[in-house]
Amino acid sequence: MITGKNYIGNRLSSKGTITYKTFHPELNQENEYVFTEATQEEINTAVDLASEAFQEFKQVSGKKKAAFLNVIADEILTLEDELIQTYCSETGLPEGRAMGERGRTVFQLRSFAELVAEGSWVEASIDTAIPDRAPLPKSDIRKMNVPIGPVVVFGASNFPLAYSTAGGDTAAALAAGCPVIVKSHPMHAGTGALVASAIIKAAEKTGMPNGVFSNLNSSGIEVGQQLVSHPKVKAVGFTGSIRGGRALLDLAAKREEPIPVFAEMGSVNPVVILPEALETRGAVLAETYAKSITLGTGQFCTNPGLILGIKSEALTNFIEKLAVETVKINPSCMLHPNIVGAYETNKKKLLAETGIEVVGAYKEAVKNNYATQVVATVSGSTFLKNPTLHQEVFGPFSLVVQCEDKAALEKIIAALEGQLTGTIIANDSEIGTYNSLITTLQDRVGRIIFNGVPTGVEVCPSMVHGGPYPASTDNRFTAVGVNSIKRWVRPFSYQDFPNALLPEELQNENPLHIARLLNNTMTRDKI
Amino acid sequence: MITGKNYIGNRLSSKGTITYKTFHPELNQENEYVFTEATQEEINTAVDLASEAFQEFKQVSGKKKAAFLNVIADEILTLEDELIQTYCSETGLPEGRAMGERGRTVFQLRSFAELVAEGSWVEASIDTAIPDRAPLPKSDIRKMNVPIGPVVVFGASNFPLAYSTAGGDTAAALAAGCPVIVKSHPMHAGTGALVASAIIKAAEKTGMPNGVFSNLNSSGIEVGQQLVSHPKVKAVGFTGSIRGGRALLDLAAKREEPIPVFAEMGSVNPVVILPEALETRGAVLAETYAKSITLGTGQFCTNPGLILGIKSEALTNFIEKLAVETVKINPSCMLHPNIVGAYETNKKKLLAETGIEVVGAYKEAVKNNYATQVVATVSGSTFLKNPTLHQEVFGPFSLVVQCEDKAALEKIIAALEGQLTGTIIANDSEIGTYNSLITTLQDRVGRIIFNGVPTGVEVCPSMVHGGPYPASTDNRFTAVGVNSIKRWVRPFSYQDFPNALLPEELQNENPLHIARLLNNTMTRDKI
Repeated sequence: MITGKNYIGNRLSSKGTITYKTFHPELNQENEYVFTEATQEEINTAVDLASEAFQEFKQVSGKKKAAFLNVIADEILTLEDELIQTYCSETGLPEGRAMGERGRTVFQLRSFAELVAEGSWVEASIDTAIPDRAPLPKSDIRKMNVPIGPVVVFGASNFPLAYSTAGGDTAAALAAGCPVIVKSHPMHAGTGALVASAIIKAAEKTGMPNGVFSNLNSSGIEVGQQLVSHPKVKAVGFTGSIRGGRALLDLAAKREEPIPVFAEMGSVNPVVILPEALETRGAVLAETYAKSITLGTGQFCTNPGLILGIKSEALTNFIEKLAVETVKINPSCMLHPNIVGAYETNKKKLLAETGIEVVGAYKEAVKNNYATQVVATVSGSTFLKNPTLHQEVFGPFSLVVQCEDKAALEKIIAALEGQLTGTIIANDSEIGTYNSLITTLQDRVGRIIFNGVPTGVEVCPSMVHGGPYPASTDNRFTAVGVNSIKRWVRPFSYQDFPNALLPEELQNENPLHIARLLNNTMTRDKI
Repeated sequence: MITGKNYIGNRLSSKGTITYKTFHPELNQENEYVFTEATQEEINTAVDLASEAFQEFKQVSGKKKAAFLNVIADEILTLEDELIQTYCSETGLPEGRAMGERGRTVFQLRSFAELVAEGSWVEASIDTAIPDRAPLPKSDIRKMNVPIGPVVVFGASNFPLAYSTAGGDTAAALAAGCPVIVKSHPMHAGTGALVASAIIKAAEKTGMPNGVFSNLNSSGIEVGQQLVSHPKVKAVGFTGSIRGGRALLDLAAKREEPIPVFAEMGSVNPVVILPEALETRGAVLAETYAKSITLGTGQFCTNPGLILGIKSEALTNFIEKLAVETVKINPSCMLHPNIVGAYETNKKKLLAETGIEVVGAYKEAVKNNYATQVVATVSGSTFLKNPTLHQEVFGPFSLVVQCEDKAALEKIIAALEGQLTGTIIANDSEIGTYNSLITTLQDRVGRIIFNGVPTGVEVCPSMVHGGPYPASTDNRFTAVGVNSIKRWVRPFSYQDFPNALLPEELQNENPLHIARLLNNTMTRDKI
């Protein structure tokens, strides 16, 4: 049931006076529930509770944390149709997408549960003592990852389930042993409230300390700012715009104790199509890319917003075909009037720049909050000179850059901002002559795709979702996959510590039977 | 030979007009060599060269990087007595220390060489494709760590070899595949110049690209500021004061593209002595700690500057004995007149605070630049109220806090700033009753030591040197041990990439025979 209140730990609370509703973009009307924004007092209480809960939660075993995460997944599934309907009413996205995203969310929670139940993720490392070493004896030193403390998670507008309340950031932080305070995304506060109730139920059922999770409503930027500035908050996870992510990064950097902000931000996900591939399969590529550009109304951080090729007849044909195929697709609803508004503004701004030619644009009348897709093109030299053309237009938009030659193409790639992904479309016969281009692209991205599309982010250990700034604020970490847990931990060393006082992960007997680096050799053996 | 010039890549250069000399603190006079500070132009050239070198260096094999690191070690040893004498003339430290630190430096270089020659450090992870997965096929995704780009290293005043020119930060960055630009420490510019010449020789002998290493002289803060602000610099390593580290962190945070700063800064390294240990072995502990406090004239970041106990007769006896034993030790020379000056100023400032009682102070006349050790004491309640008393006095100084009771002791520990280390001195019989105190201490430190001293940092995989701010700026990483390489890399994913184009670490055949996570199982097998 959606109450419109905040969860301050496991207590519902609505002391504030600022209220707001979510919006049904398909129906173009407000939804019924009224949400009350968290007050400064409620924020402080939530953080204090999280900080207290941390003292207990950081010592909870991997198996118990796994049970907690699995019960969260169970409770989310128990919400059944209420969750799916709320999700659709707050996003304009179809039921199939809602169910797919719920599936991914549940999968992520269970993946982290498996990871921490098994236990080797702490990267235990043991160097045993050498008492008779000359000139000085060597101490016994043992290390493992420990949680860093309360984490604030900002829900993403475009992933109400998989990257919001119980999404990847939250699942990773809870798995690590960090209490989480979610700053609920105002566009899908109802979805968030339902998921929050599932987490709270799971916390109670599995005996987690009160304060291990809180969910705070907010309609503006104040709640988030207060959370990031709070001395007891130790890290921040964010998915959203460059402007928003950078503002939080700057705020965190100004604190007396600066804290890490892991923000996953904008990206145009450049796609480089090499000449032979264009020549031999341009038409098929155009069809594939028309779908990728319009997938989810272009509301993916891996949307291919920029396609790079070398001027040729084949490229001209590809652009025309891409335009035709893209315009053919039925327009769809965006998440919120504000998102459509931003799309139209950014599109208009980019199209007004000198040298931009619109090749295909959906021209029919559309319903309110529907986005009309556009494919445009520009010469390489114009693109290189104008930074405005490098900016993301979040939505079903793509810009094809016609580079003068191979050298110009490589120069443009080198001049791009940091990106989440880069894609190379090439035939086997030509790839060998573009080695330095591929290397240059690698420097600008976190993931490189061969002969595919950037949309679709596999949740697996080898996935990197993150890239050089401004794709993300710290590309030493991924935001997707179980390795994202590393954002919320720090290594900790015990020197000459009594065996009985060590955490089980580091005890001689290896009671958890985890993989450990023992005197530089990986083993599950006891000492 | 010391030329006083900068190494801009492998070219000696001295275009500037600002010059300076180093100082012999034992002789209390300037050394002969004149060093020329790097100009803005020289700085830019060094960074441009590093950025170009990165394109080649990032693709150099682990075995070749290992050869480079091993030859650096060889070349450092080839410098023989010239290096040792220069070191001593610029630090006032004895020959034994110089040779010990050289040994550690060489060991570090060889440890990183071994790490990258073996190759598994890249954390290769492979998830193979599942073409028939429903509803969507799964791509082949492979991941490994790749270097982030040119790194700037600030030499440390107190470790002219092990944490400066070819010290831990440089060795780790070069091992990772990142070119390094060292901002030489002005107090030991000659030592730095000699080591830089060894690195340049090694780079030439092993065919590394020009620009893989530069060494820039600087007498003030400008060179460092310009380096940290340069857009082509991708990360910073620093060892020094909180003020210096924070200034660099703030500068890096203000860049258009913020970059990671790994600063290892101040620490008072609290030592908690529990009552029974005090009672049964207070006298021995006093002797041990007198040595630890004055080791290296107290010029270690792990110096025990704060000792915490619960008021008792045993504590009183310990304090008296500690004072006697500390004062007994012959004073020794500090690194530089500025360091002695800061020590005297900070000591005076702290001793002037209300409630501080000096228990023991070396009173005899000492030579210029010698530090006179002091042991002081204060009540727990006074300590808790006054943040000035929590600050590090870099030098042979320690403050013993007499806490009213166990609760007060725990409260004080919780109120401490972040620290590199925390030490618990306890008898087996009493340790069980202090569990929550130990947990509280863990939250404030990066390494916890049982019944030992914090001085002496073992270089091994399980070591964590780093701690919650302000001990370091990012405690998700260690500055000591081979894992410190993780500061200079980012994970990178390849999706559906042709086997032949993948780096060897990720190829099906596993030609390097490294340990890889293959579909979530660790193995050295081929696919």
